[in-house]
Amino acid sequence: MAETWSFLDTSEPDFRPLVVIELAKGTKKETIEWFTKRIVDKKANGGAQLLIKPLVTENGDENIYLVGASHLRLLLGAETVGLVKECNDNSMRTFTYSSRKTFKDFADDNHNFLTMSECQYIIKHELENLRAKDEKMIPGYPQAKLYPGKSVVRRLLTNGILVQIFPLHDREELKKLRHTWYGRVKIGYQPLDEIRCYFGETIALYFGFLEYFTFALVPMAVIGIPYYVFAWEDYDKYVMFATFNLLWSTVILEVWKRICAVMTYRWGTLLMKRQFEEPRPGFHGALGVNPVTGREEPVYSSIKRQLRIYLVSVPFVCLCLYFSLYVMMIYFDLEQWAMDYHEENKSNFSSLMLFVPSIIYAVVIEIMNRIYRYAAEFLTSWENHRLESSYQNHLILKVLVFNFLNCFASLFYIAFVMFDMKLLRQSLATLLITSQILNQFAESLLPYWLQKRHVKKMKKHVHSLKTDTDLSLVKQVSLEKEMGTYFGTFDDYLELFLQFGYVSLFSCVYPLAAVFAVLNNVTEIYSDALKMCRVYKRPFAEPTANIGVWQLAFETMSVISVVTNCILIGMSPQVNALFPDSKMDLVLTVALVEHLLLAIKFVMAFVIPDKPRDIQIKLAKLEFESLEALKQQ
Amino acid sequence: MAETWSFLDTSEPDFRPLVVIELAKGTKKETIEWFTKRIVDKKANGGAQLLIKPLVTENGDENIYLVGASHLRLLLGAETVGLVKECNDNSMRTFTYSSRKTFKDFADDNHNFLTMSECQYIIKHELENLRAKDEKMIPGYPQAKLYPGKSVVRRLLTNGILVQIFPLHDREELKKLRHTWYGRVKIGYQPLDEIRCYFGETIALYFGFLEYFTFALVPMAVIGIPYYVFAWEDYDKYVMFATFNLLWSTVILEVWKRICAVMTYRWGTLLMKRQFEEPRPGFHGALGVNPVTGREEPVYSSIKRQLRIYLVSVPFVCLCLYFSLYVMMIYFDLEQWAMDYHEENKSNFSSLMLFVPSIIYAVVIEIMNRIYRYAAEFLTSWENHRLESSYQNHLILKVLVFNFLNCFASLFYIAFVMFDMKLLRQSLATLLITSQILNQFAESLLPYWLQKRHVKKMKKHVHSLKTDTDLSLVKQVSLEKEMGTYFGTFDDYLELFLQFGYVSLFSCVYPLAAVFAVLNNVTEIYSDALKMCRVYKRPFAEPTANIGVWQLAFETMSVISVVTNCILIGMSPQVNALFPDSKMDLVLTVALVEHLLLAIKFVMAFVIPDKPRDIQIKLAKLEFESLEALKQQ
Repeated sequence: MAETWSFLDTSEPDFRPLVVIELAKGTKKETIEWFTKRIVDKKANGGAQLLIKPLVTENGDENIYLVGASHLRLLLGAETVGLVKECNDNSMRTFTYSSRKTFKDFADDNHNFLTMSECQYIIKHELENLRAKDEKMIPGYPQAKLYPGKSVVRRLLTNGILVQIFPLHDREELKKLRHTWYGRVKIGYQPLDEIRCYFGETIALYFGFLEYFTFALVPMAVIGIPYYVFAWEDYDKYVMFATFNLLWSTVILEVWKRICAVMTYRWGTLLMKRQFEEPRPGFHGALGVNPVTGREEPVYSSIKRQLRIYLVSVPFVCLCLYFSLYVMMIYFDLEQWAMDYHEENKSNFSSLMLFVPSIIYAVVIEIMNRIYRYAAEFLTSWENHRLESSYQNHLILKVLVFNFLNCFASLFYIAFVMFDMKLLRQSLATLLITSQILNQFAESLLPYWLQKRHVKKMKKHVHSLKTDTDLSLVKQVSLEKEMGTYFGTFDDYLELFLQFGYVSLFSCVYPLAAVFAVLNNVTEIYSDALKMCRVYKRPFAEPTANIGVWQLAFETMSVISVVTNCILIGMSPQVNALFPDSKMDLVLTVALVEHLLLAIKFVMAFVIPDKPRDIQIKLAKLEFESLEALKQQ
Repeated sequence: MAETWSFLDTSEPDFRPLVVIELAKGTKKETIEWFTKRIVDKKANGGAQLLIKPLVTENGDENIYLVGASHLRLLLGAETVGLVKECNDNSMRTFTYSSRKTFKDFADDNHNFLTMSECQYIIKHELENLRAKDEKMIPGYPQAKLYPGKSVVRRLLTNGILVQIFPLHDREELKKLRHTWYGRVKIGYQPLDEIRCYFGETIALYFGFLEYFTFALVPMAVIGIPYYVFAWEDYDKYVMFATFNLLWSTVILEVWKRICAVMTYRWGTLLMKRQFEEPRPGFHGALGVNPVTGREEPVYSSIKRQLRIYLVSVPFVCLCLYFSLYVMMIYFDLEQWAMDYHEENKSNFSSLMLFVPSIIYAVVIEIMNRIYRYAAEFLTSWENHRLESSYQNHLILKVLVFNFLNCFASLFYIAFVMFDMKLLRQSLATLLITSQILNQFAESLLPYWLQKRHVKKMKKHVHSLKTDTDLSLVKQVSLEKEMGTYFGTFDDYLELFLQFGYVSLFSCVYPLAAVFAVLNNVTEIYSDALKMCRVYKRPFAEPTANIGVWQLAFETMSVISVVTNCILIGMSPQVNALFPDSKMDLVLTVALVEHLLLAIKFVMAFVIPDKPRDIQIKLAKLEFESLEALKQQ
């Protein structure tokens, strides 16, 4: 490979802008010079060997730079990040430059062998791995300390010298994608492979999951409709429905793993070796030696982190949960008080007062959710996780538990303390429908409208300028750098997770929930697609092999729903009528059925293989080949 | 490596017998010639390049052969099987001949670098991988068909031409091991590393688990003793004991995973790449192409196998379980009848009759267990699993379920149908103690006594012979080939598993169970050690990284024990007295507590990492290094 690198040094590259770097206005000249030199410097000298060009903006400021790379450089980078591509014999293999001829669609002049999002991912990786050599600080900024091996870009970001790095949209591609994705009203699958090519695997997987989940809910919805139409209230029918739901939800979660494996195998991420994770930007600690890499980097004691988690975070979360329950109790008291007041007075004012508690409660919940989210982010950041993935997992867990309680505590209270099934059905319907409408509005349509207004204003502004660089590129960069940043799939999954809760936790009380969920998800696909294509900056692609911690979250929800549904069925008057003499027998029967269902769930999860047979064979084949190769050397 | 192989061709080897091959008496001469030629033939010609020597036995028959290999051949074989050894820098790495100098204790003249059991494992691997070239059949046996790539040794075994292959004991080593292991009465740990060197990882891990499990039971036993001594019958004390037991059993199973990881890291098996598994000897099917290896071998449709499992095996097992329950019911009827008869007659004969049902039941259970074991082996073999591991897992599952029911069904019946806690305690104690005594007798002491008698007879016989080969070797082989074969750790783990059931399932009724378990296990270690060293042939070492499916079995048992203990506590008169008004409240409280305990169990299993931090770091370091090496090429 060394030879290839030296060949690269002499080749004349063609420039195609891929990634935008925005520096803070007024960044010192020496810093800019040093930074750009490091970016273009040869790999042998510790540079990134990329291409960089300044973009003169409307004000003539030179604080925006475009980064690109030659085709050869990108291919070498694809090898570094361990990209997996399809070979001529249809197998998936880790790309290496030396074996490039064996890969499908590879040709020295085919610049589409790597998708644009892959190129951008490679550039991001190379920029992030641009490491300090013997610099003690960022030139011009003595407070921005460096040590050998420290990622330069991360230090620039944490010191605010670098404002942002983002990948450019490809307007032609985006137009095509928009058209096939949501441009026309059609019944059919989303173009997941195209979404993956444009936005990367994490986002494509989210849309894949959203689509799969919607299809999986259809049988529930279809079975649920007659309950509403014919107003079925028979015990046996509800039991049938709930049992079907419980087993179905296990099956769909297991089958998803298989579908996910098929998709990510095709995309190459199932096989992609996990890269060694660098410390996340916020991570701090005394300078020490990383025991894994042997490199100098901040080190923070794991015991200290555990102490922070178990002595501060866990008690804090518990306190918040308690507080949330307390607020809920106040709400029910207020409700009672409003009802009593209405009973006593029967005036217009008093009937208006009936709504006040719900409104206050809704507002308070929303406020609590936001405050808690900030607190959770602060706490998780304070726990000082070394890895972004570990930070994310701890944050997701915290937010998940609190949101679960906030959303479902009142329903649990109505169901298992007040025993009011009618109210439960009402509340469930109201919560589900309003939350869905609000979400779609707040998440996509509102930002879209804001963005559209902003674009109009910007366009006018840009048109009034006259610069000698390519106008359309200046316009595009100026527009895109002001767009909002997409902070990952967290909120989208959270929404689906809560929806799954509404559908499954009380499914035997309100079979129509699945219908609303399906309807919502169909529009959700469109509004999320709109959001991705129109509202936000293009995000960097993130290779991933599965939906990670969300699989666990959904599975946990499905276990909890077995418990709630069994209790609900046990409480129904029809079932009670079957055990006229002994409540005890009733409860024991319900408990027995619940344990049986849970056992069946676990056995099913165990029996259904996580990967389809053909994927298993393909993986085994690769493993066998690498073993054989090792033997042959 | 090719150069090394050719160097090996010319080197003059020294012969040390490691493995014994026993052919059937009267095996045709051409077969023997062909087989021995294949064994000594050069690797380049498709041979195994081992050394072989005939052993002339008392009758002058040439049907026993000793196999060995030169030191260099063994080192190359260690690379082939992927042995992991400690390096000079204390890290564990996969051994390669080219990097041999970096390994600890390596010297060209140090023949103890590989332990004897490792050498024997390598030879076994090489013999099993001796494959047919273009032979259509075993020479001299037209019915023993061969096809290119078929393992020759496996075909010889299935056709009965090869009687057995077994590794030789090392009498000096064995003597030393016996001395440190059980030669003197001492309080202390077993010499697990020595056991591993002599018997391999699977057996060492069993003894490690047995030891760990015994230590883990000590706190339960210590807490259990005062219940017996002071005859505590208070409700709160029993609840305390049961709760402690439930959480403790979760903790010990999680901690075992960590201890197991530490041990197998030290032994190198945690890092050892799983070799590609060959079809098991009994596997049959139409000749086809294996999709993974591309080699010709028997192929059997996975769907057919699934059909056999779900349409025949599963119903059969269910039928057996039903039958076993039916027999149990007859036993309880007989018991009742005997009691009634005794009440009526009150004679000596009638009081004798009281014991008859128990005796009949015990005998019938034993018979059922044996018949079922044969049936399970037959069925699992008929399911035609390609891999030995998959065969084992299916067999273990079948036997486990049936044994669980056979052992515990009567206790469940007494506890949850008859509600007779006194009888439960009695039955539990009787079953536990008698089964322990019987097991130790039938498993170790009886075979030991038989073996000793046999050895005496053999010694006389051998002494009466006069041969010109080394007499002690002839004697040793003659003795060892007649010893019983150790069929793996299955029965040993099963025994521990059932013991764990007795201790945990009804722990709140009979706290003394843990005491008996500890006492039994201390002697079990000795009797199992005796069995391994004195009764059986030396088994081939089997590298393994964990106790496999048994971990799952123990964890399942610990989940079931949460349920049973909660019900038992709920049924106790003391707890019932706390809820004088409403049985319903009692049952609901018990159910709530049970769910809480289960939730805590799962959270604990999730929170406790499966590997200790330092092992995690070491593994991450290796992974990082291999990634870096890949980048550098």
